[in-house]
Amino acid sequence: MTEQYVIRLSPKLRGFHIITEAILGGITKPLPDQGLLHVFIQHTSAGVCINENADPDVLHDFELFFNRLAPENLSGMRHTIEGPDDMPAHIKSAIVGHSVQIPIVNGRLALGTWQGIYLCEFRNRASGRKLVISVLS
Amino acid sequence: MTEQYVIRLSPKLRGFHIITEAILGGITKPLPDQGLLHVFIQHTSAGVCINENADPDVLHDFELFFNRLAPENLSGMRHTIEGPDDMPAHIKSAIVGHSVQIPIVNGRLALGTWQGIYLCEFRNRASGRKLVISVLS
Amino acid sequence: MTEQYVIRLSPKLRGFHIITEAILGGITKPLPDQGLLHVFIQHTSAGVCINENADPDVLHDFELFFNRLAPENLSGMRHTIEGPDDMPAHIKSAIVGHSVQIPIVNGRLALGTWQGIYLCEFRNRASGRKLVISVLS
Repeated sequence: MTEQYVIRLSPKLRGFHIITEAILGGITKPLPDQGLLHVFIQHTSAGVCINENADPDVLHDFELFFNRLAPENLSGMRHTIEGPDDMPAHIKSAIVGHSVQIPIVNGRLALGTWQGIYLCEFRNRASGRKLVISVLS
Repeated sequence: MTEQYVIRLSPKLRGFHIITEAILGGITKPLPDQGLLHVFIQHTSAGVCINENADPDVLHDFELFFNRLAPENLSGMRHTIEGPDDMPAHIKSAIVGHSVQIPIVNGRLALGTWQGIYLCEFRNRASGRKLVISVLS
Repeated sequence: MTEQYVIRLSPKLRGFHIITEAILGGITKPLPDQGLLHVFIQHTSAGVCINENADPDVLHDFELFFNRLAPENLSGMRHTIEGPDDMPAHIKSAIVGHSVQIPIVNGRLALGTWQGIYLCEFRNRASGRKLVISVLS
Protein backbone atom coordinates (compact mmCIF):
# COMPACT_ATOMS: atom_id res chain seq x y z
CA MET A 1 0.00 0.00 0.00
CA THR A 2 1.24 3.47 -0.85
CA GLU A 3 0.26 6.77 0.74
CA GLN A 4 1.48 9.90 -1.00
CA TYR A 5 1.87 13.54 -0.10
CA VAL A 6 3.07 16.63 -1.94
CA ILE A 7 5.19 19.05 0.05
CA ARG A 8 6.00 22.52 -1.26
CA LEU A 9 9.10 24.00 0.31
CA SER A 10 9.45 27.76 0.39
CA PRO A 11 12.35 29.23 -1.62
CA LYS A 12 15.66 28.71 0.13
CA LEU A 13 19.10 30.23 -0.15
CA ARG A 14 21.71 28.36 -2.13
CA GLY A 15 23.15 25.77 0.20
CA PHE A 16 22.26 22.74 2.28
CA HIS A 17 19.16 22.79 4.50
CA ILE A 18 17.80 20.27 6.97
CA ILE A 19 14.19 19.46 6.07
CA THR A 20 13.39 16.41 8.22
CA GLU A 21 10.72 18.24 10.23
CA ALA A 22 9.16 19.82 7.14
CA ILE A 23 8.76 16.36 5.64
CA LEU A 24 7.35 14.78 8.79
CA GLY A 25 5.01 17.75 9.17
CA GLY A 26 3.59 17.16 5.71
CA ILE A 27 2.66 13.54 6.42
CA THR A 28 -0.84 13.84 7.81
CA LYS A 29 -1.64 10.17 8.50
CA PRO A 30 0.21 8.02 11.04
CA LEU A 31 3.19 6.16 9.61
CA PRO A 32 2.72 2.38 9.29
CA ASP A 33 4.41 0.03 11.74
CA GLN A 34 6.84 -1.13 9.10
CA GLY A 35 7.59 0.30 5.70
CA LEU A 36 9.68 2.68 3.68
CA LEU A 37 9.60 6.45 3.26
CA HIS A 38 10.54 7.72 -0.18
CA VAL A 39 11.29 11.41 -0.68
CA PHE A 40 11.50 12.59 -4.28
CA ILE A 41 12.41 16.07 -5.52
CA GLN A 42 10.87 17.02 -8.87
CA HIS A 43 13.70 19.28 -10.02
CA THR A 44 17.04 18.98 -11.78
CA SER A 45 18.99 21.78 -10.12
CA ALA A 46 18.39 20.73 -6.52
CA GLY A 47 18.77 17.39 -4.78
CA VAL A 48 18.09 15.55 -1.55
CA CYS A 49 20.43 13.51 0.58
CA ILE A 50 21.02 12.36 4.14
CA ASN A 51 23.66 13.76 6.44
CA GLU A 52 24.57 15.26 9.79
CA ASN A 53 21.73 17.00 11.61
CA ALA A 54 23.62 18.77 14.41
CA ASP A 55 26.45 21.15 13.55
CA PRO A 56 25.61 24.01 11.12
CA ASP A 57 29.28 24.04 10.11
CA VAL A 58 28.64 20.80 8.26
CA LEU A 59 26.11 22.57 6.04
CA HIS A 60 28.65 25.31 5.36
CA ASP A 61 31.36 22.83 4.49
CA PHE A 62 29.10 20.91 2.11
CA GLU A 63 28.34 24.11 0.21
CA LEU A 64 32.04 24.99 0.05
CA PHE A 65 33.04 21.53 -1.11
CA PHE A 66 30.41 21.19 -3.83
CA ASN A 67 31.18 24.65 -5.20
CA ARG A 68 34.79 23.59 -5.64
CA LEU A 69 33.83 20.21 -7.05
CA ALA A 70 31.66 21.70 -9.78
CA PRO A 71 32.63 25.36 -10.11
CA GLU A 72 30.91 27.89 -12.33
CA ASN A 73 32.34 28.82 -15.73
CA LEU A 74 34.22 25.57 -16.30
CA SER A 75 35.93 25.61 -19.69
CA GLY A 76 34.09 23.70 -22.37
CA MET A 77 30.64 23.85 -20.80
CA ARG A 78 27.90 24.58 -23.36
CA HIS A 79 24.73 24.76 -21.29
CA THR A 80 25.24 28.32 -20.09
CA ILE A 81 22.04 30.02 -21.23
CA GLU A 82 20.34 29.71 -17.83
CA GLY A 83 23.22 31.30 -15.94
CA PRO A 84 26.61 30.14 -14.66
CA ASP A 85 25.07 28.39 -11.66
CA ASP A 86 22.70 26.21 -13.69
CA MET A 87 24.90 23.53 -15.23
CA PRO A 88 26.87 23.08 -11.97
CA ALA A 89 23.48 22.68 -10.27
CA HIS A 90 22.55 19.86 -12.66
CA ILE A 91 25.87 18.14 -12.00
CA LYS A 92 25.69 18.50 -8.23
CA SER A 93 22.12 17.19 -8.14
CA ALA A 94 23.12 14.10 -10.13
CA ILE A 95 25.89 13.47 -7.59
CA VAL A 96 23.76 13.78 -4.44
CA GLY A 97 20.67 12.33 -6.10
CA HIS A 98 16.98 13.12 -6.35
CA SER A 99 15.52 10.77 -3.76
CA VAL A 100 16.18 9.32 -0.35
CA GLN A 101 14.67 6.14 1.05
CA ILE A 102 14.43 5.62 4.79
CA PRO A 103 13.01 2.61 6.63
CA ILE A 104 9.99 3.04 8.88
CA VAL A 105 10.32 0.86 11.99
CA ASN A 106 7.73 0.71 14.78
CA GLY A 107 5.83 3.58 13.23
CA ARG A 108 8.82 5.92 13.20
CA LEU A 109 11.40 7.03 10.69
CA ALA A 110 14.47 4.88 11.41
CA LEU A 111 17.08 7.58 10.93
CA GLY A 112 20.33 7.20 12.84
CA THR A 113 20.92 9.52 15.79
CA TRP A 114 22.87 12.03 13.73
CA GLN A 115 20.99 11.72 10.46
CA GLY A 116 18.74 14.33 8.93
CA ILE A 117 17.28 14.83 5.46
CA TYR A 118 18.91 17.61 3.43
CA LEU A 119 17.50 19.78 0.70
CA CYS A 120 20.50 20.63 -1.47
CA GLU A 121 19.68 23.93 -3.17
CA PHE A 122 22.14 24.59 -5.96
CA ARG A 123 20.61 27.66 -7.65
CA ASN A 124 21.37 31.25 -6.68
CA ARG A 125 17.76 32.41 -6.91
CA ALA A 126 15.59 29.35 -6.64
CA SER A 127 11.84 29.18 -6.51
CA GLY A 128 10.13 26.90 -4.01
CA ARG A 129 10.78 23.21 -4.50
CA LYS A 130 8.24 20.43 -4.77
CA LEU A 131 8.68 17.07 -3.07
CA VAL A 132 6.58 13.96 -3.59
CA ILE A 133 6.55 11.76 -0.51
CA SER A 134 5.56 8.10 -0.77
CA VAL A 135 4.99 5.91 2.28
CA LEU A 136 5.18 2.24 1.30
CA SER A 137 4.01 -0.51 3.62
CA MET B 1 2.57 -6.00 -4.96
CA THR B 2 5.49 -5.95 -7.33
CA GLU B 3 5.47 -6.16 -11.12
CA GLN B 4 8.83 -6.62 -12.78
CA TYR B 5 10.23 -6.22 -16.27
CA VAL B 6 13.62 -6.71 -17.86
CA ILE B 7 14.69 -4.15 -20.42
CA ARG B 8 17.69 -4.71 -22.66
CA LEU B 9 19.13 -1.48 -24.02
CA SER B 10 21.09 -1.61 -27.26
CA PRO B 11 24.80 -0.68 -27.01
CA LYS B 12 25.27 3.05 -26.66
CA LEU B 13 28.16 5.44 -27.13
CA ARG B 14 30.04 6.54 -24.07
CA GLY B 15 28.09 9.40 -22.57
CA PHE B 16 24.73 10.29 -21.07
CA HIS B 17 21.52 9.14 -22.77
CA ILE B 18 17.88 9.85 -21.98
CA ILE B 19 16.01 6.54 -21.64
CA THR B 20 12.67 7.56 -20.13
CA GLU B 21 10.69 6.42 -23.17
CA ALA B 22 12.61 3.15 -23.48
CA ILE B 23 11.71 2.35 -19.88
CA LEU B 24 8.04 3.29 -20.22
CA GLY B 25 7.90 1.32 -23.46
CA GLY B 26 9.10 -1.80 -21.67
CA ILE B 27 6.35 -1.69 -19.05
CA THR B 28 3.56 -3.70 -20.68
CA LYS B 29 0.88 -3.46 -17.97
CA PRO B 30 -0.78 -0.21 -16.88
CA LEU B 31 0.95 1.52 -13.99
CA PRO B 32 -0.91 1.40 -10.68
CA ASP B 33 -2.72 4.50 -9.39
CA GLN B 34 -0.13 4.98 -6.68
CA GLY B 35 3.24 3.38 -6.22
CA LEU B 36 6.93 3.55 -6.94
CA LEU B 37 8.98 2.79 -10.02
CA HIS B 38 12.40 1.32 -9.38
CA VAL B 39 14.95 1.19 -12.19
CA PHE B 40 18.03 -0.94 -11.54
CA ILE B 41 21.05 -1.38 -13.81
CA GLN B 42 22.85 -4.72 -13.45
CA HIS B 43 26.33 -3.43 -14.29
CA THR B 44 29.25 -1.79 -12.53
CA SER B 45 30.62 0.41 -15.31
CA ALA B 46 27.38 2.21 -16.15
CA GLY B 47 24.84 3.96 -13.97
CA VAL B 48 21.42 5.56 -13.97
CA CYS B 49 20.36 8.95 -12.68
CA ILE B 50 17.77 11.66 -13.18
CA ASN B 51 18.43 14.95 -14.87
CA GLU B 52 17.45 17.51 -17.49
CA ASN B 53 15.47 16.13 -20.43
CA ALA B 54 15.54 19.09 -22.82
CA ASP B 55 18.88 20.55 -23.90
CA PRO B 56 21.39 18.09 -25.47
CA ASP B 57 24.17 20.40 -24.28
CA VAL B 58 23.47 19.17 -20.75
CA LEU B 59 24.35 15.62 -21.83
CA HIS B 60 27.58 16.90 -23.37
CA ASP B 61 28.51 18.84 -20.26
CA PHE B 62 27.86 15.84 -18.00
CA GLU B 63 30.23 13.73 -20.07
CA LEU B 64 32.88 16.44 -19.99
CA PHE B 65 32.56 16.97 -16.25
CA PHE B 66 32.70 13.31 -15.27
CA ASN B 67 35.71 12.68 -17.49
CA ARG B 68 37.54 15.40 -15.64
CA LEU B 69 36.30 14.21 -12.27
CA ALA B 70 37.59 10.66 -12.77
CA PRO B 71 40.14 10.81 -15.59
CA GLU B 72 41.85 7.81 -17.13
CA ASN B 73 45.36 6.80 -16.10
CA LEU B 74 45.26 8.33 -12.64
CA SER B 75 48.50 7.67 -10.77
CA GLY B 76 48.28 4.85 -8.27
CA MET B 77 45.35 3.03 -9.84
CA ARG B 78 45.85 -0.76 -9.89
CA HIS B 79 42.74 -2.06 -11.64
CA THR B 80 43.96 -1.36 -15.17
CA ILE B 81 43.70 -4.77 -16.81
CA GLU B 82 40.33 -4.08 -18.42
CA GLY B 83 41.50 -0.84 -20.05
CA PRO B 84 42.02 2.75 -18.92
CA ASP B 85 38.30 3.53 -19.09
CA ASP B 86 37.25 0.69 -16.77
CA MET B 87 38.23 1.85 -13.28
CA PRO B 88 36.98 5.41 -13.96
CA ALA B 89 33.72 3.77 -15.09
CA HIS B 90 33.41 1.95 -11.76
CA ILE B 91 34.03 5.18 -9.86
CA LYS B 92 31.60 7.25 -11.92
CA SER B 93 28.88 4.62 -11.59
CA ALA B 94 29.27 4.61 -7.79
CA ILE B 95 28.87 8.39 -7.83
CA VAL B 96 25.70 8.56 -9.95
CA GLY B 97 24.35 5.29 -8.59
CA HIS B 98 22.79 2.10 -9.93
CA SER B 99 19.11 2.77 -9.37
CA VAL B 100 16.51 5.51 -9.50
CA GLN B 101 13.18 5.53 -7.72
CA ILE B 102 10.31 7.63 -9.00
CA PRO B 103 6.83 7.96 -7.51
CA ILE B 104 3.82 6.85 -9.54
CA VAL B 105 0.90 9.23 -8.99
CA ASN B 106 -2.50 8.86 -10.66
CA GLY B 107 -1.18 6.08 -12.84
CA ARG B 108 1.67 8.14 -14.23
CA LEU B 109 5.35 8.57 -13.51
CA ALA B 110 5.60 11.70 -11.34
CA LEU B 111 8.71 13.16 -12.91
CA GLY B 112 9.11 16.92 -12.77
CA THR B 113 8.61 18.88 -15.98
CA TRP B 114 12.30 18.90 -16.83
CA GLN B 115 13.25 15.49 -15.47
CA GLY B 116 14.25 12.48 -17.51
CA ILE B 117 15.97 9.19 -16.70
CA TYR B 118 19.57 8.93 -17.86
CA LEU B 119 21.63 5.93 -18.79
CA CYS B 120 25.20 6.91 -17.91
CA GLU B 121 27.44 4.85 -20.18
CA PHE B 122 31.03 5.05 -18.98
CA ARG B 123 32.76 2.45 -21.20
CA ASN B 124 34.28 3.21 -24.58
CA ARG B 125 32.93 0.08 -26.23
CA ALA B 126 30.04 -1.12 -24.15
CA SER B 127 27.71 -4.00 -24.87
CA GLY B 128 23.99 -3.58 -24.38
CA ARG B 129 22.89 -2.91 -20.81
CA LYS B 130 20.28 -4.77 -18.81
CA LEU B 131 17.79 -3.01 -16.57
CA VAL B 132 15.42 -4.61 -14.07
CA ILE B 133 12.29 -2.52 -13.56
CA SER B 134 10.13 -3.02 -10.48
CA VAL B 135 6.73 -1.40 -10.07
CA LEU B 136 5.72 -1.39 -6.41
CA SER B 137 2.17 -0.61 -5.33
CA MET C 1 4.36 -6.24 3.03
CA THR C 2 7.63 -5.33 4.65
CA GLU C 3 10.05 -7.58 6.55
CA GLN C 4 12.86 -5.84 8.39
CA TYR C 5 16.17 -6.87 9.90
CA VAL C 6 18.91 -5.07 11.78
CA ILE C 7 22.47 -6.06 10.93
CA ARG C 8 25.40 -4.94 13.04
CA LEU C 9 28.68 -5.00 11.17
CA SER C 10 31.89 -5.35 13.16
CA PRO C 11 34.29 -2.38 13.01
CA LYS C 12 36.14 -2.24 9.72
CA LEU C 13 39.24 -0.51 8.46
CA ARG C 14 38.83 2.69 6.51
CA GLY C 15 38.10 1.68 2.94
CA PHE C 16 35.60 -0.19 0.80
CA HIS C 17 34.35 -3.62 1.88
CA ILE C 18 32.08 -6.12 0.15
CA ILE C 19 29.19 -7.00 2.48
CA THR C 20 26.77 -8.87 0.22
CA GLU C 21 27.11 -12.12 2.17
CA ALA C 22 26.83 -10.40 5.54
CA ILE C 23 23.54 -8.88 4.43
CA LEU C 24 22.13 -12.09 2.99
CA GLY C 25 23.24 -13.91 6.14
CA GLY C 26 21.23 -11.52 8.30
CA ILE C 27 17.98 -12.15 6.43
CA THR C 28 16.50 -15.09 8.30
CA LYS C 29 13.27 -15.63 6.32
CA PRO C 30 13.16 -16.68 2.66
CA LEU C 31 13.08 -13.78 0.23
CA PRO C 32 9.77 -13.27 -1.56
CA ASP C 33 9.38 -14.30 -5.20
CA GLN C 34 9.29 -10.68 -6.30
CA GLY C 35 10.14 -7.57 -4.40
CA LEU C 36 12.80 -5.08 -3.46
CA LEU C 37 15.65 -5.21 -0.98
CA HIS C 38 16.47 -1.92 0.72
CA VAL C 39 19.74 -1.57 2.65
CA PHE C 40 20.04 1.51 4.84
CA ILE C 41 23.06 2.60 6.87
CA GLN C 42 22.24 4.65 9.98
CA HIS C 43 25.40 6.75 9.97
CA THR C 44 26.70 9.93 8.37
CA SER C 45 30.38 9.10 7.99
CA ALA C 46 29.96 5.81 6.14
CA GLY C 47 27.90 4.89 3.11
CA VAL C 48 26.72 1.97 1.01
CA CYS C 49 26.89 1.50 -2.73
CA ILE C 50 27.05 -1.17 -5.41
CA ASN C 51 30.15 -2.05 -7.37
CA GLU C 52 32.56 -4.69 -8.59
CA ASN C 53 32.71 -7.86 -6.49
CA ALA C 54 35.76 -9.57 -7.96
CA ASP C 55 39.09 -7.74 -8.03
CA PRO C 56 40.37 -6.40 -4.67
CA ASP C 57 42.28 -3.76 -6.62
CA VAL C 58 38.97 -2.06 -7.30
CA LEU C 59 38.46 -1.58 -3.56
CA HIS C 60 41.95 -0.10 -3.29
CA ASP C 61 41.34 2.27 -6.19
CA PHE C 62 38.03 3.48 -4.76
CA GLU C 63 39.73 4.37 -1.50
CA LEU C 64 42.52 6.20 -3.33
CA PHE C 65 40.10 8.10 -5.54
CA PHE C 66 37.77 9.23 -2.77
CA ASN C 67 40.65 10.37 -0.60
CA ARG C 68 41.80 12.61 -3.42
CA LEU C 69 38.27 13.78 -4.17
CA ALA C 70 37.63 14.92 -0.59
CA PRO C 71 41.02 15.25 1.09
CA GLU C 72 41.58 16.05 4.74
CA ASN C 73 42.42 19.57 5.88
CA LEU C 74 40.81 21.36 2.95
CA SER C 75 41.09 25.12 3.36
CA GLY C 76 37.95 26.78 4.64
CA MET C 77 36.45 23.74 6.31
CA ARG C 78 34.94 24.55 9.71
CA HIS C 79 33.68 21.20 10.99
CA THR C 80 37.06 19.99 12.23
CA ILE C 81 36.34 19.22 15.88
CA GLU C 82 35.82 15.49 15.31
CA GLY C 83 39.13 15.07 13.49
CA PRO C 84 40.42 15.71 9.97
CA ASP C 85 38.78 12.56 8.59
CA ASP C 86 35.27 13.46 9.79
CA MET C 87 34.07 16.18 7.40
CA PRO C 88 35.54 14.35 4.37
CA ALA C 89 33.64 11.29 5.62
CA HIS C 90 30.37 13.25 5.63
CA ILE C 91 31.03 14.48 2.10
CA LYS C 92 32.00 11.08 0.73
CA SER C 93 28.95 9.44 2.29
CA ALA C 94 26.66 12.01 0.67
CA ILE C 95 28.27 11.21 -2.68
CA VAL C 96 27.95 7.41 -2.52
CA GLY C 97 24.70 7.54 -0.58
CA HIS C 98 23.15 5.88 2.46
CA SER C 99 21.00 3.23 0.86
CA VAL C 100 20.93 0.76 -2.00
CA GLN C 101 17.85 -0.81 -3.52
CA ILE C 102 18.07 -4.11 -5.35
CA PRO C 103 15.26 -6.03 -7.04
CA ILE C 104 14.35 -9.49 -5.79
CA VAL C 105 13.46 -11.75 -8.72
CA ASN C 106 12.45 -15.41 -8.37
CA GLY C 107 13.32 -15.32 -4.68
CA ARG C 108 16.86 -14.15 -5.26
CA LEU C 109 18.70 -10.85 -5.17
CA ALA C 110 18.90 -9.73 -8.82
CA LEU C 111 22.43 -8.37 -8.72
CA GLY C 112 24.38 -8.41 -11.96
CA THR C 113 27.17 -10.97 -12.30
CA TRP C 114 29.85 -8.54 -11.18
CA GLN C 115 27.84 -6.57 -8.63
CA GLY C 116 28.30 -6.64 -4.89
CA ILE C 117 27.17 -4.40 -2.05
CA TYR C 118 29.87 -2.19 -0.56
CA LEU C 119 30.22 -0.77 2.90
CA CYS C 120 32.14 2.46 2.41
CA GLU C 121 33.94 3.13 5.68
CA PHE C 122 35.28 6.67 5.72
CA ARG C 123 36.50 7.04 9.32
CA ASN C 124 39.99 6.12 10.52
CA ARG C 125 38.79 4.45 13.71
CA ALA C 126 35.18 3.54 13.18
CA SER C 127 32.94 1.62 15.53
CA GLY C 128 30.68 -1.09 14.16
CA ARG C 129 28.01 0.08 11.76
CA LYS C 130 24.28 -0.58 11.91
CA LEU C 131 22.24 -1.43 8.83
CA VAL C 132 18.45 -1.63 8.61
CA ILE C 133 17.34 -4.06 5.92
CA SER C 134 13.81 -3.87 4.51
CA VAL C 135 12.37 -6.51 2.21
CA LEU C 136 9.37 -5.14 0.32
CA SER C 137 7.02 -7.39 -1.58
